[in-house]
Amino acid sequence: MSSLKPVFTSLREAQKRLALQNREQKDEALRAAAAAIDRDRRAILAANAVDIKKARFDGMKEALLDRLLLDKQRIDSIIAGIETVADLEDPVGRVKSGWKTPSGLFIEQITVPLGVAAIIYESRPNVTADAASLAYKAGCAILLRGSSAALESNRALTASIRAGLNAGGGIGDAVALAGSGSRDEINKILRARGCIDVVLPRGGREFIRQVVENSRVPVIETGEGNCHIYVDESADMNNAVDIIENAKLQKPGACNAVETLLVRREALALLMPSLAARLAKKAELHCDAESKAAIINAETRCRTGEFVPSHKGLVIKDAVEEDWKTEFLDYVLAVKTVRSLDEAVNHINRYGTGHSEAILTGNIGAAEEFCRGVDAACVYVNASTRFTDGGEFGFGAELGISTQKLHARGPMGLEALTTIKYRINGQGHVRE
Amino acid sequence: MSSLKPVFTSLREAQKRLALQNREQKDEALRAAAAAIDRDRRAILAANAVDIKKARFDGMKEALLDRLLLDKQRIDSIIAGIETVADLEDPVGRVKSGWKTPSGLFIEQITVPLGVAAIIYESRPNVTADAASLAYKAGCAILLRGSSAALESNRALTASIRAGLNAGGGIGDAVALAGSGSRDEINKILRARGCIDVVLPRGGREFIRQVVENSRVPVIETGEGNCHIYVDESADMNNAVDIIENAKLQKPGACNAVETLLVRREALALLMPSLAARLAKKAELHCDAESKAAIINAETRCRTGEFVPSHKGLVIKDAVEEDWKTEFLDYVLAVKTVRSLDEAVNHINRYGTGHSEAILTGNIGAAEEFCRGVDAACVYVNASTRFTDGGEFGFGAELGISTQKLHARGPMGLEALTTIKYRINGQGHVRE
Repeated sequence: MSSLKPVFTSLREAQKRLALQNREQKDEALRAAAAAIDRDRRAILAANAVDIKKARFDGMKEALLDRLLLDKQRIDSIIAGIETVADLEDPVGRVKSGWKTPSGLFIEQITVPLGVAAIIYESRPNVTADAASLAYKAGCAILLRGSSAALESNRALTASIRAGLNAGGGIGDAVALAGSGSRDEINKILRARGCIDVVLPRGGREFIRQVVENSRVPVIETGEGNCHIYVDESADMNNAVDIIENAKLQKPGACNAVETLLVRREALALLMPSLAARLAKKAELHCDAESKAAIINAETRCRTGEFVPSHKGLVIKDAVEEDWKTEFLDYVLAVKTVRSLDEAVNHINRYGTGHSEAILTGNIGAAEEFCRGVDAACVYVNASTRFTDGGEFGFGAELGISTQKLHARGPMGLEALTTIKYRINGQGHVRE
Repeated sequence: MSSLKPVFTSLREAQKRLALQNREQKDEALRAAAAAIDRDRRAILAANAVDIKKARFDGMKEALLDRLLLDKQRIDSIIAGIETVADLEDPVGRVKSGWKTPSGLFIEQITVPLGVAAIIYESRPNVTADAASLAYKAGCAILLRGSSAALESNRALTASIRAGLNAGGGIGDAVALAGSGSRDEINKILRARGCIDVVLPRGGREFIRQVVENSRVPVIETGEGNCHIYVDESADMNNAVDIIENAKLQKPGACNAVETLLVRREALALLMPSLAARLAKKAELHCDAESKAAIINAETRCRTGEFVPSHKGLVIKDAVEEDWKTEFLDYVLAVKTVRSLDEAVNHINRYGTGHSEAILTGNIGAAEEFCRGVDAACVYVNASTRFTDGGEFGFGAELGISTQKLHARGPMGLEALTTIKYRINGQGHVRE
């Protein structure tokens, strides 16, 4: 494979020029990039067809093929995504704070572009356009390293974006594709200290771990979400069933889907029977003894004439230690009984990945204690964990969801691609 | 050496408890720590005397011995430092932003403690107290790994701080010393991913580079400062001489001292003769041909009767490429002539370390262009680079000066030890 050095140099040069562009110039270039994709639809779809054909030949699963696939509607949505980013406020040049020192120095903290970013991502081609447009708007150059399965699609998309940026008076070189598809390319990116200012890896736990351990470039970890919902006895149980169903079933493969339900003992009888009925035939439960009993007992009561919705067709397995650690990304929900809010918080801080955690409660004190005690990017009160998303948060698009604490936490939009610069104005000031 | 594992566990546990303390509780504990140091003066000075004796025996240079030395006045200043931190606003629990989504979810971005930090630092014992108090105030636990030369001093200081925090109703275990003095200890800290949330290395370029390359824990780089002052022809030259003298001579060993002076060609004759006179016998200049000529020519004019201050006793050497790359940390100033502001900015972005850069000018457009073009933590207009300092910025104390762009940039005070958490309040919200 060829060296990435010329690409690094070109990105750095492009970023320096891009940093000097104002909002109007950046937005015009972005809109031209959106127009170029619109114009190049046929070529992009043709390139995608090549990727799909190859992937099918290689035996890729249908679910993954679907992620890779582009069609008219998806290209519409890619174009709309770029236009949304163009509409966002400029994250650069904002004065975050400012003050005068006793001797009269005026200090301002101003947002500036982070520099050159690299993103290593899975097969969805829309990430190519999202990441490129967010980076451009933030004044950053970006190296895109998509899945080799999406190589032709990404080549076509990147070519359109670069041509569009140039046509709109912008700087096409600020967006580059690491296009060899080789594994070694990733190592070169991770070693490019000084050339790349930050690497954003997206993918599974093992991949992220490898990146973190091998990278000499600062990394922002994303994605892994072992998310919990804790239900106490004061929760609105109808709401609770709706929220749990949404958090588990709406998109089980998403990182913000719930994996373990923690139920306060006193809430078991109120929640479990109707939850069991709702999830029957839709999800498998891995229950501890008490939560399982709450379902079975309800069934027993049902037989004796009390009204309880049936959970016929529900698969219940006995939960094991491994369940608490697992991000199922599937139609599986682990259920654990806890004796107190404290136990729930401790369980979450022990097994959670710092992504999204929710409490369902009617008690204001419990909500406060939960939010304070849980160490995670997003803590929810009476809402589904599925809202952890740049789009839902109003960021326009996202680069990923940071599960680390340094620099960016939670959904990463434009702000994650900025840093600050202090500007200090004196009148001949010297230090005493 | 013994394992650091129990220390890591104890720090994590302490941090969890500390995160729940309010400002009043934290400040009371910090004031008690200051009181404990006041009470334990004799033991601290005795411990320091042991370090000094050993260092002298080992042949440590006087300048370094001075950094290591504690006396009554320095202990006063350590105590005052802790009290200043206690007086600072709580950086935790601030709502940085908040908004409602279209569906009525209320999202707030709230500051929270970063977690467990580690600082690896040089021999000045005051850093022990500064770092411990800043971390405590930010709700973080901290592992202190000072120079082995300061081991006894740091043991005594840390013991007082821990005892004081406990006596003040606080959590002494939130402050721990990595006290074996062995080199291997540093490697254990750098590998403690999951136990330590961030490492702050302080020291020379080579040490920082090693830490960055070997650490699996996120690192914030600090310290290296190859700082520049650029003088254009519109600058007030009397001011310029004052500022350059201050930036070079007030404390040449500091990372914010100026190392290279960039002079616009048109300003040479206005600046160099009086600067040469001011720095004569105080600093050595490494000049390029033109800036050297500007001094020599002035001398010639002087002999012919024109008034020019003498630069008798000034040592001028011819500048070489290596000079532009060097952080002298000494009474040496490199001088380079540039043809334009653009050339100055390019020189700085090529050779600078992103620390502190200044322009001296009377031209508002030049100031703007310089501040926009230079990529550094701090950019100054008509002021000495020596102001880059947590104390001067009003942060109370500092953990170091970040020269990287991720998370923290410039002087790091309390804010650098915080991260954010999103708190999202719904009323049974599910995602569509």
